[in-house]
Amino acid sequence: MAVDTESVKELRARTGAGMMDCRNALAECGGIEKAIDYLREKGLAKAAKKAERVALQGSVFSYIHTNNKIGVLLELNCETDFVAKTDEFKTLGHELCMQIAAANPSYISIEDVSADDLERERDIYRKQALEEGKPEKMLDRIADGKINAFYQDNCLLEQNYIRDPKVKIKDLIVADIAKMGENIVVRRMARFAIGA
Amino acid sequence: MAVDTESVKELRARTGAGMMDCRNALAECGGIEKAIDYLREKGLAKAAKKAERVALQGSVFSYIHTNNKIGVLLELNCETDFVAKTDEFKTLGHELCMQIAAANPSYISIEDVSADDLERERDIYRKQALEEGKPEKMLDRIADGKINAFYQDNCLLEQNYIRDPKVKIKDLIVADIAKMGENIVVRRMARFAIGA
Repeated sequence: MAVDTESVKELRARTGAGMMDCRNALAECGGIEKAIDYLREKGLAKAAKKAERVALQGSVFSYIHTNNKIGVLLELNCETDFVAKTDEFKTLGHELCMQIAAANPSYISIEDVSADDLERERDIYRKQALEEGKPEKMLDRIADGKINAFYQDNCLLEQNYIRDPKVKIKDLIVADIAKMGENIVVRRMARFAIGA
Repeated sequence: MAVDTESVKELRARTGAGMMDCRNALAECGGIEKAIDYLREKGLAKAAKKAERVALQGSVFSYIHTNNKIGVLLELNCETDFVAKTDEFKTLGHELCMQIAAANPSYISIEDVSADDLERERDIYRKQALEEGKPEKMLDRIADGKINAFYQDNCLLEQNYIRDPKVKIKDLIVADIAKMGENIVVRRMARFAIGA
């Protein structure tokens, strides 16, 4: 198998193994995950506790709501540490945390909704409509409409901004991207609420 | 199917549906997840965005490391809000966050390591030992020893406390349980590091 430079770079970052060992492992195994196991078996890699990936810039933000009953953690990526240190970036991170605390999105973007979750929702909407006496041929259109509402309720980027419901969260981010001239991405979020 | 009171209680909490509707749904479906879908299809339940569970007490803690490159979120449960408000509980929450930031556990407890993850580790340890020329009949014992080390490195409760390596994290928690006289449980944790 042809071994590309990017894979070698990632494998080195993730295992700490030497360049030639990484090349050989990739040629042998054909994929990064298998190559990691191979290098570890050969004793050539540290038992990396977690996948380390090529460095990005950005910041981790947190927000703990009154009474410590709701907490949010957010990783917001950008391209340079210069942008990560701007007030605009910090404000965006804070606002996104507040949004997540208040509006409780289950997903970051539409792409994060699994096919299974989507199918489950669609199925329920169809049966709801049937139960309400809607004609069979309308069911799919009704379900589609409800799926759109589901996205708006449950995907952070599709949600209306809590401070200005005319603005979507993705528009808020796009405005900052335009201002800063570099890409900004919500990479990960977590929201813990006591008893939920 | 016989319907137990606990399930009815949980189903009511998660759907907002009436007592009798919950009973009927459980009798019909035999399980809570299916009963939720059933109630939603019948239009008897709110489209709960996320599962709400019977209330516990506790607090959500966060810690952002210098430079905002590492962040931790932790849900620590106890039985009463009285305990959640004590300095001891707050200190424990803070120390656990520091531990997670510094020692990067992948799991809370040994029980959280999936059978697949365990099998993957065990397989690697056997092959490493074989590669080092260890005799076949020793491989399982060697792998067992390394799995123990794996738990100590990767499971929060098994880790040595960063401020006192003679103490395990679970001992730290048990000491507070003894002091407070009620159970304390690490329910969830998240740790985000930029570029990792």
